[in-house]
Amino acid sequence: MIHIASPELSGNEKLYVNECLDSTWISSSGRFITDFERAFADACGAKHAIATNNGTTALHLVLAALGIGPGDEVVVPVLTYIATANAVRYCGAEPVFVDVEPDTMNMDPRLFEAAITPRTRAVIPVDLYGHPADMVAIAAIAELHGIAVIEDSAEAHGAEINGGRVGSFGLATAFSFFGNKILTTGEGGAVTTNDAALASRMRLLRGQGMDLERRYWFTDVGYNYRMTNIAAAIGLAQLERFDESLARRDQIAKQYDALLSGNARLALPESRPEVRRVNWLYTVTVEGLSADERDQLIVDLASEGIETRPVFHPLHHLPPYLQPDASFPVAERLGASGISLPTHLGLSENDIATVCEALSGALD
Amino acid sequence: MIHIASPELSGNEKLYVNECLDSTWISSSGRFITDFERAFADACGAKHAIATNNGTTALHLVLAALGIGPGDEVVVPVLTYIATANAVRYCGAEPVFVDVEPDTMNMDPRLFEAAITPRTRAVIPVDLYGHPADMVAIAAIAELHGIAVIEDSAEAHGAEINGGRVGSFGLATAFSFFGNKILTTGEGGAVTTNDAALASRMRLLRGQGMDLERRYWFTDVGYNYRMTNIAAAIGLAQLERFDESLARRDQIAKQYDALLSGNARLALPESRPEVRRVNWLYTVTVEGLSADERDQLIVDLASEGIETRPVFHPLHHLPPYLQPDASFPVAERLGASGISLPTHLGLSENDIATVCEALSGALD
Ligand SMILES: Cc1ncc(COP(=O)(O)O)c(CN[C@H]2[C@H](O)[C@H](O)[C@@H](OP(=O)(O)OP(=O)(O)OC[C@H]3O[C@@H](n4cnc5c(=O)[nH]c(N)nc54)[C@H](O)[C@@H]3O)O[C@@H]2C)c1O
Ligand SMILES: Cc1ncc(COP(=O)(O)O)c(CN[C@H]2[C@H](O)[C@H](O)[C@@H](OP(=O)(O)OP(=O)(O)OC[C@H]3O[C@@H](n4cnc5c(=O)[nH]c(N)nc54)[C@H](O)[C@@H]3O)O[C@@H]2C)c1O
Repeated sequence: MIHIASPELSGNEKLYVNECLDSTWISSSGRFITDFERAFADACGAKHAIATNNGTTALHLVLAALGIGPGDEVVVPVLTYIATANAVRYCGAEPVFVDVEPDTMNMDPRLFEAAITPRTRAVIPVDLYGHPADMVAIAAIAELHGIAVIEDSAEAHGAEINGGRVGSFGLATAFSFFGNKILTTGEGGAVTTNDAALASRMRLLRGQGMDLERRYWFTDVGYNYRMTNIAAAIGLAQLERFDESLARRDQIAKQYDALLSGNARLALPESRPEVRRVNWLYTVTVEGLSADERDQLIVDLASEGIETRPVFHPLHHLPPYLQPDASFPVAERLGASGISLPTHLGLSENDIATVCEALSGALD
Repeated sequence: MIHIASPELSGNEKLYVNECLDSTWISSSGRFITDFERAFADACGAKHAIATNNGTTALHLVLAALGIGPGDEVVVPVLTYIATANAVRYCGAEPVFVDVEPDTMNMDPRLFEAAITPRTRAVIPVDLYGHPADMVAIAAIAELHGIAVIEDSAEAHGAEINGGRVGSFGLATAFSFFGNKILTTGEGGAVTTNDAALASRMRLLRGQGMDLERRYWFTDVGYNYRMTNIAAAIGLAQLERFDESLARRDQIAKQYDALLSGNARLALPESRPEVRRVNWLYTVTVEGLSADERDQLIVDLASEGIETRPVFHPLHHLPPYLQPDASFPVAERLGASGISLPTHLGLSENDIATVCEALSGALD
């Protein structure tokens, strides 16, 4: 089986996790949590990082800390993993969907601007599959209207715009460290921000709303969104090989590019000139493919031992967010015809060649 | 320093966690999750166990699966850890507080009955410090009124009523496996239930609301409340020594009883005859002690190297649930004069004697 993703744990992961077990600090206190938060903030060029137990809770934590609530609207791209929208709903607020750009698959800034109403409190651009959203344009529009920008970089650790890393833009950035991500902690997440007040509000809410100075005195309805010392130990070890991992993922993408660029039906991942795309999942679209044909393609590839994933269903097609009459043509086309190919550090050149042959064969 | 709690990891914890790392299954798939769920359900005498990332999310998961929402009321004891009430608030519902019984510190069934209104959808009895709530009386009242009973056994793994274990009563039971608990997974939780439909609804909502048959097709707004394979590996190892741990905790309680029973100012933990209390935290109250004096006692003991904890602030005293005019006299007295003493498997007889001497000395 050639898996779509697989964590690579060949560094200090084991050493650090065993240090947790030997010291008995396996819960949400311990040196690895603070070390990981510091190292991850530094890696992003951000002042603060708040580690959480996953990427979904990271998104919710920012929104909760900003006091987003019933009656508020938050603009979200219609093509994303459902957690982006769910985090808005957890607050009792409404996600407002906008279509994406065909080259990057990310929120179209002009459509964001068109979606703004007096109720718009925040916007969540998502960096899909490793290509950062157009943060420059989005931030400019948001600033004009006094809207908070929260980047969802669950899929784009290490990506850059004009030489600055994701995690350093906007008011805050949410990350996921699930087992299929560029950096993993097993399950995990983090929020980065340069805003000290927001950071401390998030720390309070992450720890059940407990006053940081007075034990069992709870000033707010908070959450248990804490990361464990064990998860942070894995994350710290992963960070030690961060640049190396990004470079290896670039190589994998280059090999895919070389083997697939001859196929006229395929649109391969693109990069805007000002951007450093990271290669989380190498995702292509097949011209003229319907959703049913794409799903069949996934089944066919699986029967040859190759695990792939469909591009996300546009959110307005899913039961909790159903808008049968709405039209988001770009997301609908990408969502139907897109497929993510295996992308992880354990792939050999042979594996990638096998994937490309199988894909090209299936499309003949 | 004599800590109030400390996990004991001397069994297969390390072996199993290293198996996760070696196999690279560190995220929320893997054999330990299913093995742990099976073993924990069996240990409770329940049909199903759904593992979660902590005890707070376990509570919320049940309430969400039951569709508790705005306009609903859920009866909660006023003396508990704040998470019990927060889980109700996460659903947009209102926790309704009732006072506790002086001997068990748990919800008074008659006051529960008096608090029922047409809006009451559920009741959450809590098994404080290891003594099970009066589930027989509470279940009888709840059944009469068609109210769902969800037990919060975060603090009472292994406790029994009439020979049946907590986890097997009511509609569902929520547990915590935080680092200070009788069983730990670092951070973790679980819900047990005998209701197959509720169990599968909880599995769906735990996994982001994703259809279990169709990948990336989300039928509901769900959550990322999954437990990792690593956490479950620790839990499975802990379960292998469960009965042993309970027995050792009984010994510790016996030693405290023997050394403290001569002090007329102290009320020691009691057990109802039909009950097997487990000794999560050995918790005493000091006659006539004010909250300020108790807080000073904690500081004094800390200066002698002894970590203790105050009994919970009654929820109606805390800012998010403030009811300045309400009166819950039993909870107020216990909350002011109660103190939890070190209770964990690493304590020596000497440690316990040291704690008792320091406590008695401070009260002289
Ligand atoms: C834009 C955006 N915003 C927010 C979030 C929320 O973050 P979070 O999931 O709450 O941390 C996310 C995260 N979305 C992920 C989620 O993390 C989600 O769980 C994941 O869905 P999935 O494809 O259904 O996940 P999976 O089937 O469990 O894992 C995918 C493959 O990764 C590999 N894998 C995952 N965990 C492990 C592991 O522990 N070991 C090994 N060997 N392989 C693993 C296996 O090959 C799996 O088949 O993929 C989604 C795209 C996001 O993308
Ligand atoms: C009735 C009820 N309902 C729901 C919940 C929610 O469950 P959950 O916390 O979401 O899993 C709970 C859980 N309440 C716990 C929580 O789990 C909470 O985190 C805890 O509060 P705390 O006393 O502030 O916790 P702490 O200071 O972090 O840990 C207490 C001591 O335990 C020991 N300890 C904890 N984790 C570790 C560890 O990993 N290693 C070592 N060596 N010691 C540890 C240390 O001595 C700590 O000083 O105590 C509360 C009573 C509950 O009691």
